[in-house]
Amino acid sequence: MILTKGHGTENDFVIVADVDGALEIDAAEVAKLCDRRAGIGADGLLRVVRTANMPGYEDQADRAEFFMDYRNADGSIAEMCGNGVRVFALYLVARGLVKTAETAETSSAEFGVATRGGLKPVRLVRTGENAADVTVDMGIPVFPTTRGAITVDVLGTPRPATDVDMGNPHAVVFVDSVDDAGDLFTMPRVAPEGVYAEGVNVEFVEDKAPRHVAMRVFERGVGETRSCGTGACAAMIATARRDGAPAGTEYTVDVPGGRLRFVERRDGHLEMTGPALLLFDATAVFDVSPLTRPAFAEDR
Amino acid sequence: MILTKGHGTENDFVIVADVDGALEIDAAEVAKLCDRRAGIGADGLLRVVRTANMPGYEDQADRAEFFMDYRNADGSIAEMCGNGVRVFALYLVARGLVKTAETAETSSAEFGVATRGGLKPVRLVRTGENAADVTVDMGIPVFPTTRGAITVDVLGTPRPATDVDMGNPHAVVFVDSVDDAGDLFTMPRVAPEGVYAEGVNVEFVEDKAPRHVAMRVFERGVGETRSCGTGACAAMIATARRDGAPAGTEYTVDVPGGRLRFVERRDGHLEMTGPALLLFDATAVFDVSPLTRPAFAEDR
Repeated sequence: MILTKGHGTENDFVIVADVDGALEIDAAEVAKLCDRRAGIGADGLLRVVRTANMPGYEDQADRAEFFMDYRNADGSIAEMCGNGVRVFALYLVARGLVKTAETAETSSAEFGVATRGGLKPVRLVRTGENAADVTVDMGIPVFPTTRGAITVDVLGTPRPATDVDMGNPHAVVFVDSVDDAGDLFTMPRVAPEGVYAEGVNVEFVEDKAPRHVAMRVFERGVGETRSCGTGACAAMIATARRDGAPAGTEYTVDVPGGRLRFVERRDGHLEMTGPALLLFDATAVFDVSPLTRPAFAEDR
Repeated sequence: MILTKGHGTENDFVIVADVDGALEIDAAEVAKLCDRRAGIGADGLLRVVRTANMPGYEDQADRAEFFMDYRNADGSIAEMCGNGVRVFALYLVARGLVKTAETAETSSAEFGVATRGGLKPVRLVRTGENAADVTVDMGIPVFPTTRGAITVDVLGTPRPATDVDMGNPHAVVFVDSVDDAGDLFTMPRVAPEGVYAEGVNVEFVEDKAPRHVAMRVFERGVGETRSCGTGACAAMIATARRDGAPAGTEYTVDVPGGRLRFVERRDGHLEMTGPALLLFDATAVFDVSPLTRPAFAEDR
């Protein structure tokens, strides 16, 4: 098993090449590989499978040669990951699984990636042997109307927030400074209480310049993260709507892990562009036996 | 540059073989290699140098063939690391730099490791190709008398603590449950205020059975960690003194990252025994260029 570590705006992944779909990687093995101290360490695992070999998804094979089998760090299955798709696309190109078109100036490729969340079209421009800028179609943002007025506590005061759905729920609040989000050790207070039955991701957005914001994000079930693809989408579209910007306007969203760029197309789809990097190959994983942690430590 | 990742009770390290002492690894490079998302990820870096090739430490070469050049994750230099020495010793044996004595039952070795904190004698018993139990002489604990009575807040109430110096300061407090330490997001309150001019490590110790405790630790300048070698020493010796245990009594200390065993020798030295594991070789580090984080994110 050859493993590769990569990241996109510091959302990081262990990549496993399994084009034949022969590997059975159970949740405990994913958790061990993603453990930052006893494994390789990552937010999630990307298994590279030829779509024709991915049971239940063979019908996507004519539009996307490869399927991104994404697992969360705890081993659970997830539909999609915007930062993960960029890293996945770079891996395909860097390892020669997808060919690029070469010109004097650039090496680029355009192809589809199959995911549990459907086909994701990507455009890739290589910026180095193991680096690329990748554009991903993140779909059409939705502004739900059923929840009514939402607020997020900022420095102890409820502030109006924008409710955005990117396949998952987001509450976007504009702040004078991203420092106003505080330490984000715990979930920010969102009101009315219980309005998001399944929790919500919260984005704190600061204006840096026209069409350029910075954002910090609290991901539900995780905590503050260095990057959240759908969260950056939500921050961008909430800002663009506030500004009354027409489709086609380019926006920049700085996240703690780097910089993302966005364009809302005329058909309503948001295109996200950002970096992808491959860092190293882990040629030998010497010990994948279960951890021997004392029982009291299991939850820490 | 071949890099190896290993850990001891989940205190983890990037190991760099540089027996000739030819590599110049500056603080920024160490920080990048130790970055958990944009590098390999570790609490620190262990550079393996032949002691004869380590300027200023050549006089230790006759007692210890190899010098452990330890760097903290931020690139700063540190004198010693008890968990690091175990992993360092395993690396020497696993890579054939130090030979083991083989019997029918076991493969073991006894040798010295040179460090900035002086010569550290180790005994190693291999438990696998890339695993070992390693015993390290952690030196003589000191009970300072100049600070007077110390307390640590537990669930809002000041509780008497034992002041232990293991080369660095520790305040050890006995608790009914390690859960009483709370979330440990911030430094526990230690009184009298300012009594530790340069800060203190705080250990919360719960009795599990006779001569067996569990511990959680808040390391100064870091936060809660999964293991702290000197902290476990402090917890053990404070417990042994409370119990009136004679030298030679074996104690077990569970830390969140695993299990450590201790014996206080008749000469007052504490011997710590614990696991060491090598996890993987990072055969190619593709990108060691500086991170391109937005300025606002530098401190996060």
